[in-house]
Amino acid sequence: MRVGMLTGGGDCPGLNAVIRGAVRKGVTAHGHEFVGFRDGWRGPLEGDTMTLGIDEVRGILPRGGTILGSSRTNPFAIENGVERIKDNLAAAGCDALIAIGGEDTLGVATKLADLGVNVVGVPKTIDNDLSGTDFTFGFDTAVNIAMEAIDRLHTTAESHHRALVVEVMGRHAGWIALHSGLAGGANIILIPERPFDIDKVCAQVESRFATHYSPIIVVAEGATPLEGTMELVSGEKDAFGHVRLGGIGDRLAHEIEERTGREARAVVLGHIQRGGTPTAFDRWLATRFGLHAIQAVTDGEFGTMVALRGTEIVRVPLAEGTSELKVVRPELYEEVEVLFG
Amino acid sequence: MRVGMLTGGGDCPGLNAVIRGAVRKGVTAHGHEFVGFRDGWRGPLEGDTMTLGIDEVRGILPRGGTILGSSRTNPFAIENGVERIKDNLAAAGCDALIAIGGEDTLGVATKLADLGVNVVGVPKTIDNDLSGTDFTFGFDTAVNIAMEAIDRLHTTAESHHRALVVEVMGRHAGWIALHSGLAGGANIILIPERPFDIDKVCAQVESRFATHYSPIIVVAEGATPLEGTMELVSGEKDAFGHVRLGGIGDRLAHEIEERTGREARAVVLGHIQRGGTPTAFDRWLATRFGLHAIQAVTDGEFGTMVALRGTEIVRVPLAEGTSELKVVRPELYEEVEVLFG
Amino acid sequence: MRVGMLTGGGDCPGLNAVIRGAVRKGVTAHGHEFVGFRDGWRGPLEGDTMTLGIDEVRGILPRGGTILGSSRTNPFAIENGVERIKDNLAAAGCDALIAIGGEDTLGVATKLADLGVNVVGVPKTIDNDLSGTDFTFGFDTAVNIAMEAIDRLHTTAESHHRALVVEVMGRHAGWIALHSGLAGGANIILIPERPFDIDKVCAQVESRFATHYSPIIVVAEGATPLEGTMELVSGEKDAFGHVRLGGIGDRLAHEIEERTGREARAVVLGHIQRGGTPTAFDRWLATRFGLHAIQAVTDGEFGTMVALRGTEIVRVPLAEGTSELKVVRPELYEEVEVLFG
Amino acid sequence: MRVGMLTGGGDCPGLNAVIRGAVRKGVTAHGHEFVGFRDGWRGPLEGDTMTLGIDEVRGILPRGGTILGSSRTNPFAIENGVERIKDNLAAAGCDALIAIGGEDTLGVATKLADLGVNVVGVPKTIDNDLSGTDFTFGFDTAVNIAMEAIDRLHTTAESHHRALVVEVMGRHAGWIALHSGLAGGANIILIPERPFDIDKVCAQVESRFATHYSPIIVVAEGATPLEGTMELVSGEKDAFGHVRLGGIGDRLAHEIEERTGREARAVVLGHIQRGGTPTAFDRWLATRFGLHAIQAVTDGEFGTMVALRGTEIVRVPLAEGTSELKVVRPELYEEVEVLFG
Repeated sequence: MRVGMLTGGGDCPGLNAVIRGAVRKGVTAHGHEFVGFRDGWRGPLEGDTMTLGIDEVRGILPRGGTILGSSRTNPFAIENGVERIKDNLAAAGCDALIAIGGEDTLGVATKLADLGVNVVGVPKTIDNDLSGTDFTFGFDTAVNIAMEAIDRLHTTAESHHRALVVEVMGRHAGWIALHSGLAGGANIILIPERPFDIDKVCAQVESRFATHYSPIIVVAEGATPLEGTMELVSGEKDAFGHVRLGGIGDRLAHEIEERTGREARAVVLGHIQRGGTPTAFDRWLATRFGLHAIQAVTDGEFGTMVALRGTEIVRVPLAEGTSELKVVRPELYEEVEVLFG
Repeated sequence: MRVGMLTGGGDCPGLNAVIRGAVRKGVTAHGHEFVGFRDGWRGPLEGDTMTLGIDEVRGILPRGGTILGSSRTNPFAIENGVERIKDNLAAAGCDALIAIGGEDTLGVATKLADLGVNVVGVPKTIDNDLSGTDFTFGFDTAVNIAMEAIDRLHTTAESHHRALVVEVMGRHAGWIALHSGLAGGANIILIPERPFDIDKVCAQVESRFATHYSPIIVVAEGATPLEGTMELVSGEKDAFGHVRLGGIGDRLAHEIEERTGREARAVVLGHIQRGGTPTAFDRWLATRFGLHAIQAVTDGEFGTMVALRGTEIVRVPLAEGTSELKVVRPELYEEVEVLFG
Repeated sequence: MRVGMLTGGGDCPGLNAVIRGAVRKGVTAHGHEFVGFRDGWRGPLEGDTMTLGIDEVRGILPRGGTILGSSRTNPFAIENGVERIKDNLAAAGCDALIAIGGEDTLGVATKLADLGVNVVGVPKTIDNDLSGTDFTFGFDTAVNIAMEAIDRLHTTAESHHRALVVEVMGRHAGWIALHSGLAGGANIILIPERPFDIDKVCAQVESRFATHYSPIIVVAEGATPLEGTMELVSGEKDAFGHVRLGGIGDRLAHEIEERTGREARAVVLGHIQRGGTPTAFDRWLATRFGLHAIQAVTDGEFGTMVALRGTEIVRVPLAEGTSELKVVRPELYEEVEVLFG
Repeated sequence: MRVGMLTGGGDCPGLNAVIRGAVRKGVTAHGHEFVGFRDGWRGPLEGDTMTLGIDEVRGILPRGGTILGSSRTNPFAIENGVERIKDNLAAAGCDALIAIGGEDTLGVATKLADLGVNVVGVPKTIDNDLSGTDFTFGFDTAVNIAMEAIDRLHTTAESHHRALVVEVMGRHAGWIALHSGLAGGANIILIPERPFDIDKVCAQVESRFATHYSPIIVVAEGATPLEGTMELVSGEKDAFGHVRLGGIGDRLAHEIEERTGREARAVVLGHIQRGGTPTAFDRWLATRFGLHAIQAVTDGEFGTMVALRGTEIVRVPLAEGTSELKVVRPELYEEVEVLFG
């Protein structure tokens, strides 16, 4: 078989491990050939390919990013996008395609599968908010980077009797905030699933200071105040019309200073959470996703994606895997909330 | 309630996170009091206690080791051991006991539970070989430390055209070897579950050198050669009669040199795998184990231990959790074996 | 002798190592006693002291921050400040004072020395911009943290064909930017000592993209554009009237996007550069500073500060050590500039 | 000009940074061409070359090892070795040669320079024991790796009331032991420069245990007991007749157990100290060495090597730089000894 591969959406530690796992097994165990498509769906859309074999995947396991490049190109937003993809897959001699990506990339894959393209998906989201799988790769790396930053900030917070706000990734789900905040011993964790009461946050800040310790507040970029409790600065946009990363962290630090009279500073972790070498967990998970994806291709089980359930890798229908956002359930938040403060 | 707590067996990153989680929730949510017993079962055996409250658990989350100390004391090997434990628990006013430990510690806990002691267990093994739980805390930290060492060794192996053998922990199960070896891109992984053929290992070493790359061999300390294929040096013992850690790594490097004429060096990671600050995964898991253990105590569900299943923490009977060694299944080894070489 | 000790200004990895070194040697080798003053000059100003002995400094070597706390209190800005300090030092029975801090803290120490207080200084600035010493502790840690962030960002920059701007500390001197940028393989490094030409920066960005690689720009927080080349947003102030950290990074990313039409993102490292455990270099330097400071006290060489020259610790007059800002010389910048692009 | 380059001896983090610095500057600023010789002196001896230009040095800055490979080949021990080197340099069109290596490699370079070869040297020793330079690259990385290991071992030592012996590199000089031991807060540091008294070591171990803390002993691989105080196991040799790394660590742990009755364990760090990504200090130093080496070549200052003095890079005669072993002076050891125990 001849198998195409692409990576779409934001980069994520572990992408290269997936690619390597699939190629190593595909070539060695099954005698497949591979074609790399560059920059997500832009690759098959424009027929932009690269050589992909044992040599190309050598040494990439510990490297962040993706050797295939990435983009947010959506072929359904482009005239004749689907036909052009089909034509280019055919021109490249591809019998099947492995699409590695998040909600958007797999959403396109799902539609293409319905249109007869032989696709197998590999879920990817650093935010860990895809419903079909217990965990996605990249998440563990991001959580560890955020935790290490919080570890570092503790000493500054205490030496200076200062509140520190750490803004982490998580637009729609608070997984990174919850895991890194808990692991880092944060005193307050704010997530998109639970609009926060700024008065309560400030009361917690005061009560922490009263114990002679300084508060660390971890806030997901998508967390929002309860309506009417705190005026939000309207989202600043960049030259491309995207709302800039960050915002809530700075805003929150400002508000805490104004309301409590205590010094507060914000640290916005931003892109360092998604780059660099993956943790062992992410290399293990991503590699196994790659191995299982090429097995699904070999078995002809198209329209599926691989997923983690407990310690097993399973196959689930593509549509199912991406249909729902996996958010932090109230019970889980309440379970660990006892540690805050 | 008044709750005793102890940690037994080898130290493991995350022990302090368990203690902190249980104490923080026990005091804050349930109004319990705690008594720390020092050095595993030696504590209740000799009535050696320490204060354990909110102040004692402050700041311990990121710290390796255990503030309670540890030992391998077995009360069943000591005259009147069980009575002395019961007496000392009563003297300390303990209504219940949380025992954190591995096969041995929880084995004692199981017997004590049968004898009417109110025990809840928390499984701990850096080797990840307890059958009742998907993962144990400390394992992820050990795997990451080993992986980072392997990452470092790659450059040395290649600059010097030299085979490097890395001996990692794992007496009875090859989990650390398998996960760290796969994450580190090892070329050969040898585990206790699969006695190895030294001729085949040497052939793989030669074939790796033939590609102009240098082989990295990860070997679990408990891995053994197929009978008759390689003479093993008899286990050296220390002053206390314990067989020393290590052995197979050095032996294997020696054998590879002798048989292939290639330079080979061994690195025995030893104790650095079990010390130091836990990863985010281990802090998360250990904290949740602590929270659930004190809940089990509060609910009066004695004779149980907490365990991870998927992303949920569940309770299983103590006897069940420790009855079987969880080893690497052949299918899993074969799944990833395609990556070796 | 009875020796007071205080730490002033921003926190810096290594402060605790200085304190430990001085106390360990003072008590063990000379039989001195110590008094800790809390929060910089606020401590002696208000007579706020803490116990400081062998027990208090145990285990603090690897910890960031300062067990003595810090502040920016300036006794010369407070009525009778100097008298109150003299009175409180006398009341605490202090024969001498070790002041650990930067330009401001040591500036106060210099004046107090002139007024007859027995002071020895230990230079501290994470920015490495004190003229009297080859290096200050904390700087190496900050540079490594920034370098690791840049390492991580490389993969994101390349996977997304995106320019990344990294803002690091350095208000008046570009040492952190220069060292971390060079160590991280940045393509452009902008420092306060050399106002930058935004047109030239954009040209370098374009030329880097033309090679199919993505540019990483490291900018010191105090870097400024050449007059008239780029409109600067006026410095936003916080509730306390301090200009907020950051600013130039975001502004620069915005400008690059506008002028080149390429996506650009900024990461502002902020406080994570100054927290957490010190590197070996900083622990070594800080410990030796502590050892030599207490020796200077014992020798009665007041009005001096310790300093690093090559591999030796020397004593220099306090006034000399802080009189001049140590900036990046043009020759050094030009020496390494050949690596940019 | 056409410039050859080779790396000899043990690998060391920073070698690639030297290569990159020299090539980037040589090509960009001076228009030189480069020839890589493989595996130290074996390359020019056998005429084994590789392409070396801007493309080859891209991305190698953060990578440990050496892209040129290394060996311990000594051309003076080989018949007509020198002539063959001269012939091959001529055949490759080399006007000059940059030799990067330690005592042996630079010893050969010195002799070749005397015989008229245009050589410039770059000093390299992870042990930091070359007299001509304040520091060598790789040393800071090794010290940090060893310190992190010691940090990790503290918690194990204390949880188990066990003495831990950490063997680090340093055959002839104790720099790594001294710096990492001091930075890691070791209780005893044993170095080759000061034969140790095993009775005194055991007394220190006992006295540390008496304080309820557990001792960490850092020992350089070349440390030796005072004659007659401790029987040394004769050095085991490997298949190639080399004495194996390690030995004193295990032996010392054994002896401590025997003499004190306390449990003791050894950890031999071995090759992980010399592999992997360099620290910022080492990347900075190595890069500057590369930049200055190619400048020396361009200036025609042959027979010299680059060296660090304070914060400056200077040129010293090759013969001088390698003539003497730089050992730990007694005053320095005594300065920090007050911290032990």
